[in-house]
Order: sequence, then C-alpha cells, then structure tokens
Amino acid sequence: MKILILGGDGYLGWSTAMNLSSHGHEICVIDNYARREICAKQNIQFLFENPSLEERSQCWEAISGQRIKVHIGDLQQWDCVAALFNSFKPDAIIHYAEQPSAPYSMFDRDSAAYTLQNNLLVTFNLIHGVKQFVPDAHIIKLGTMGEYGTPNIEIEEGWIDITHKGRDGRFLFPRQAGSLYHTTKIMDTDLLWFYVRMWKLRVTDLMQGPVYGMHTEQTRADDRLLPLFNYDEMFGTVLNRFIVQAVCGYPLTVYGKGEQKRGYLNILDTLACVKLAIDNPAQQGELRIFNQFTEVFSVNDLAQKVATAGNKMGMNVKIDSLENPRIEAEEHFYQPAHTGLLSLGLKPHYLTDDVMAEMLETVLRHQSNIEKEQIMRGVKWDASVQKIKTQAA
Amino acid sequence: MKILILGGDGYLGWSTAMNLSSHGHEICVIDNYARREICAKQNIQFLFENPSLEERSQCWEAISGQRIKVHIGDLQQWDCVAALFNSFKPDAIIHYAEQPSAPYSMFDRDSAAYTLQNNLLVTFNLIHGVKQFVPDAHIIKLGTMGEYGTPNIEIEEGWIDITHKGRDGRFLFPRQAGSLYHTTKIMDTDLLWFYVRMWKLRVTDLMQGPVYGMHTEQTRADDRLLPLFNYDEMFGTVLNRFIVQAVCGYPLTVYGKGEQKRGYLNILDTLACVKLAIDNPAQQGELRIFNQFTEVFSVNDLAQKVATAGNKMGMNVKIDSLENPRIEAEEHFYQPAHTGLLSLGLKPHYLTDDVMAEMLETVLRHQSNIEKEQIMRGVKWDASVQKIKTQAA
Repeated sequence: MKILILGGDGYLGWSTAMNLSSHGHEICVIDNYARREICAKQNIQFLFENPSLEERSQCWEAISGQRIKVHIGDLQQWDCVAALFNSFKPDAIIHYAEQPSAPYSMFDRDSAAYTLQNNLLVTFNLIHGVKQFVPDAHIIKLGTMGEYGTPNIEIEEGWIDITHKGRDGRFLFPRQAGSLYHTTKIMDTDLLWFYVRMWKLRVTDLMQGPVYGMHTEQTRADDRLLPLFNYDEMFGTVLNRFIVQAVCGYPLTVYGKGEQKRGYLNILDTLACVKLAIDNPAQQGELRIFNQFTEVFSVNDLAQKVATAGNKMGMNVKIDSLENPRIEAEEHFYQPAHTGLLSLGLKPHYLTDDVMAEMLETVLRHQSNIEKEQIMRGVKWDASVQKIKTQAA
Repeated sequence: MKILILGGDGYLGWSTAMNLSSHGHEICVIDNYARREICAKQNIQFLFENPSLEERSQCWEAISGQRIKVHIGDLQQWDCVAALFNSFKPDAIIHYAEQPSAPYSMFDRDSAAYTLQNNLLVTFNLIHGVKQFVPDAHIIKLGTMGEYGTPNIEIEEGWIDITHKGRDGRFLFPRQAGSLYHTTKIMDTDLLWFYVRMWKLRVTDLMQGPVYGMHTEQTRADDRLLPLFNYDEMFGTVLNRFIVQAVCGYPLTVYGKGEQKRGYLNILDTLACVKLAIDNPAQQGELRIFNQFTEVFSVNDLAQKVATAGNKMGMNVKIDSLENPRIEAEEHFYQPAHTGLLSLGLKPHYLTDDVMAEMLETVLRHQSNIEKEQIMRGVKWDASVQKIKTQAA
C-alpha cells in the first residue's frame, strides 16, 4: 500500500514510517521541520541526536533494505500539497502534521496564531488534496483524548446517543478542551466531519492520549533511528519528562493536586493502532472514531511509579508539588471508553516495572545530553491576563 | 458607550452602526471591503448603489448630527487589530467580519480556504485584541442557527443538559452544519468558548437565522444609507432573493422538495437584538447564547408568500422546482427554542402582508438595477466530486 505520512519527522511520525515500511508498505514522509525550528528558537534540545530525515531514511534503507521517500515542504501551502498528491497518489494518509504542544499554544499570541493557522490549514489542505487527487484514499487523523476534556459523564468513543424531550439523535460526543492546541483538534474534527458528510471521505480519527516510550522494534538497530524526544515542559509528555527528571535528579513536577487523570499509551501501541487502522480502513462517508489509550493514570500515579522504579535503581527521586500553571480540574470524574481498537485486535503494552526500567535505562545511556535548566518553561495559561491586571492596578 | 463594529460595511454591519449611533453611542466601524471585492470578481451587483463607508458616514452625520468613525483595514492582520484596539478602546465589539456566504464557501478551493482563514483568524485576533487591550469589553458575535443544522431533537438555546448512564453534564448543544461557512461558525464557537473559560471573557453569541428586509428607521432619509443588498444566489438570503425574482419576473427557485425549514427574522429585529445584547451585557466568564429569529418557515412557505403578495400587486409570479445543488435534508424535524431575546424585551416584526408589500415596493423603485442573469450562480456542493468521477470514468 502507498502510505503518505504528514509530519514524518516527529516523535510518532518517524516511528510510524519505519514500522509501516518494515511491513512492506511504500512510504513517503513529508515535514517542514517546524518542531526542530520551534525548539531551536525556544532553546530546547532533544534527548537523542536526530539526523535529518534524509539521513535517517538512508540509515533505515541500509538496515532494512526498504526505502522511505522524504519530502521537505510546508503543508500550509496548497502548491506543496497538490504537487505531493499528484506525484505520490497515496492509498492512505496519516496526519501528524500539527503543532502538538498545549503549552506552546498558550505561550504567546504568535505561537497561538501559528498553532491555529498551521493545524487548521494543513487539515483543510489534506481534505482538498484527497478530494482532488485520491478521493478514495483513507485519511487517518491523529486526534486527542484532550478534545473531550474532563466531562462529568462517561466519555464514549467519539459519538453519543441523546434522548431529548422524547426524541433521539446521534451526535459527536461533546468536546471541550483545556488548551488552544486541543481546541484546534476539536476544530479539525468539525472540519473532517463536515467534509465526510459532503464528499463521502473515508476518515479514521484516533483520539490519542499522551504517549510514552522511546524504542520501537525498528530503533534498536541504530541510535540514529530514535525519535525526536522532548523532555521539556513545553513539548515533552508528562511520563517521558518525569523519566528524564528522575534520571537527572530534578524533582518530579506535579501540578496542583495531581489528581488529573488521562488515558496513556506506549509508543508501541500507537504504532499498532495506526497499523490496525490502515489494515481495516473506514468506509466511504464514514468518520470512524477510536479512543486510543490503554490505561488511565493520574499524574500522582505516574510520579509514584517513576519514583518507585527510579529508587529501585538507586536514584533518589523526589516529588514536588507546584502551583498549577494550567487552568484545569485537578480532581474530576474520568471514565472514557476504549474498546474499538481492542476489538480490532490491539494487544496493549502496559506500563509495567520492566517498561519503566527500560525507559530509565535508555535515558541513563543518554544522560550526558540532558540539560536540566531546559526542563521547566514557565508557560502559564493566564499569564497575559495577570499581566493586564498588574498594568491596570 | 464606545462600540466597535467589525465588518461595518455589510448588510447588517452598516445598519447596526447607524442604529446604535442614533441611540447616542460612539461608533467606530472597520471593514476591508472584502464583500465588495468578492462580488466585483464574481460579477455580482448590489441592488442599491452603495457609496463608500466614508461617504455614507458623512451622509449620516449630515442627517443625524452623529459621527461614525471609519477605518479601512484587514482584521486578519494583528497589527491592524492592535492599532485599532489601542486607539479606540471599545466597551463592546460587534463581530460581523466574516465571509458569510454558504455557496461561496463551497465554490472552489480558494474561496473555501479564504472563508476558513478569514473567519477563524479574525475571531482569533478579536479575542486576543480584547484580552490585551480591553479585557472587560463585551464581545457580541454573530453566530448562525445553521451551526445546529437540522437534528432530530428540539434545538435548545446554545446549551443542552445531558443525562448519560446516570450522570449529568451541561454541554454546548451539538452542532453539525451544512456548509463550510456554517462550519467555520461552529469553529468560532469552539474558539470563543475555550477563551471564555480560560480568560473570563464576556461573550454573547447571537445564533441568527436568515435575515430579510431593506429599510431601517435610519435609511429612510437618504437612499445612500441603504445597506449592501444582494439578490444573487451566492450572497442573497432566500427571501430577499425571492422578492427580487418576483419583481423582475424570474421564477422563484425552490431547491428540491422545498420543505427545508429555517428560523427567519426582519433586519429591524437584528438591530433590536443586537441593541438588547449591548444594553444587557454578558457576565465575565460567560458565553451567553441566544437563538435569534422570530418565525420558522419552509422554503415553500416563503415562495408561496412572495407569490401571493406579488400577484396581489399585479405581478405574475411563477415558482420553479430545481434539483437541489446543496447536500441537505429536504424534509426534516425542526423545532428550535428562541425565548432568550423575547425575555430581554424583543418585540418581533413578523412577516406580514404589509412587510412583504413594502419590500416589493422598495425593489420595484430600484428595478432598473436588477440584472437577471446574475441571480443563479450554479454553485454545487459536490461539484468537484462529480468532476473527479467523470475524470476517473
């Protein structure tokens, strides 16, 4: 199958590319290196040294005998999208090409505007690229569990049946997110759902929770194949960050009460879920939605697990409680469904002691790359509001 | 009160400006003449001759003694927004500055991209302008009843209480629109609701139905004060268009079965509703939503009313049934609530025989401006899909 991966340089994009390539698919990746550029400007280093996509592709070919085509280009530009779809004609497209950091989307006006514009225009161009060049192709869109927020009712898998004043309707499950980034993903859903109904697109929306992990089956041969891995507060997901904090002796930073619950998954399960979606495409005119996570943890649960695993390895892991820089519920009901991918055959990799230990060991081997002072970034959800209040006082 | 009107050149923007000016408010309007430019490029004429904003402002000042400040600028540009908010410091902002045509948003890729980008970025810049310069100002956003679509349950006023598996939640009423334009308004709602929760903005969202009418109290003094009035299929609302079709002897064009129901209102009621919102602002941290229409009609109802009123005036009005160029339900349940504005004191102007007759007479006086061949534009919701099918066959 010909598979196009948008955002193929990223943590998940590159890992997905190698995984699907190893299963014999013809892979093309495109990226504009936006993550690398933003991180450079914000003085954020990755944990691993990541060669360019071209170099990683050559490395992968040398190891696997499989070639991954590389395009560097900006998917906000229609000319770039049109040329790509016209030349590659994918059977499936996996869409990771979004600015994925909640804190970055709340950092300042420019970063917020970039997040809104990039995420919406890329999704829009993807839709129009499919319609114009490959109308039967399957779009696999990475959504996020964060779109649902933390409602007081059980979270269903994408949709909800409502009986209201004696009449029935089926609707998108209500979405109400906690950052501008997550809100742009809600808007992606609106856009995709509209065009699915109008143009009978095939779309799978994978509502993913925070991902953790480093190695995949394909990275073990050569460290140059390891993914872009952030351990800073801006781009690092919480468990990945805690692992690095444990290794470098930086107290684990729990926001507020730490009872914020989310659904997490191992990067190996991200790869498995995407492959399941590829192997079992959505129907024409179907927006198929899966909740993509394997276990629910609170932030306190994660901190405790990292501390236990770290201390077992002789680290002296401390946990700090910080004033919450976000505006979010610190204690809440959380019961999200996640049966769709399991019934397609997902075999979860749970967060066992062995998994924790392997992550800690991998980070230990790259410990010299850690720059402690990069970890905390100080982004506050209402920083500008506070600034205004001070000015007015 | 200092009131800023975004999109102050348009059908409703200019009418609102004069109405609030006549009530003694200090008004500033901004527009980039996008509607005039799009119509010029699409070879669409307005029914009335509309002088520039500056000229209309001078005309209004000569008549009323009140001045309306005029800025010409593009609200997609942050510099323009920042300069405006910094100099004018409004107490309330009325946001009409969106590409409002459903058919134009479905016309081609460029028009769709423009609609998405303009509508989202202007709303985003408005939010950031308020936050940075006037955090206590009241945002009055024109939404649309079209955001709800035509669900199988009663449409509530913005919100719905859901009991699901024994637990309760309150959510935005599910939204599911029938055009990209209407979908961008859903995305506006997502964006506003997010920032209302984060930054405690005051927002009123007026979910308006299709508006009809020409004259307002302020336009009667001078025809130069009449609003931009479209009678073409792209920018003309259905009743306005039918009135012009009746006058020029063009059979009324009903799409499909004609049982599509919507909530309509007179332009006088738009002005009254906006004024009620201004006089009764939303609270800090409140997204207040009103369904803004006064009567529900089907397209067949409207065609019948226009035919009856026209024939009474000696016209020979015919009704044509056309293949529906849109993808929409042609027969559906429709029961939307609309009590909020009534309880604030709205006194509706219903679609009486007198109202119909006055509209027909106004159009008759400007009959020489009608260009029949401009009426139908042939925009199809799935035109591009059909094109692709033909290419593939």
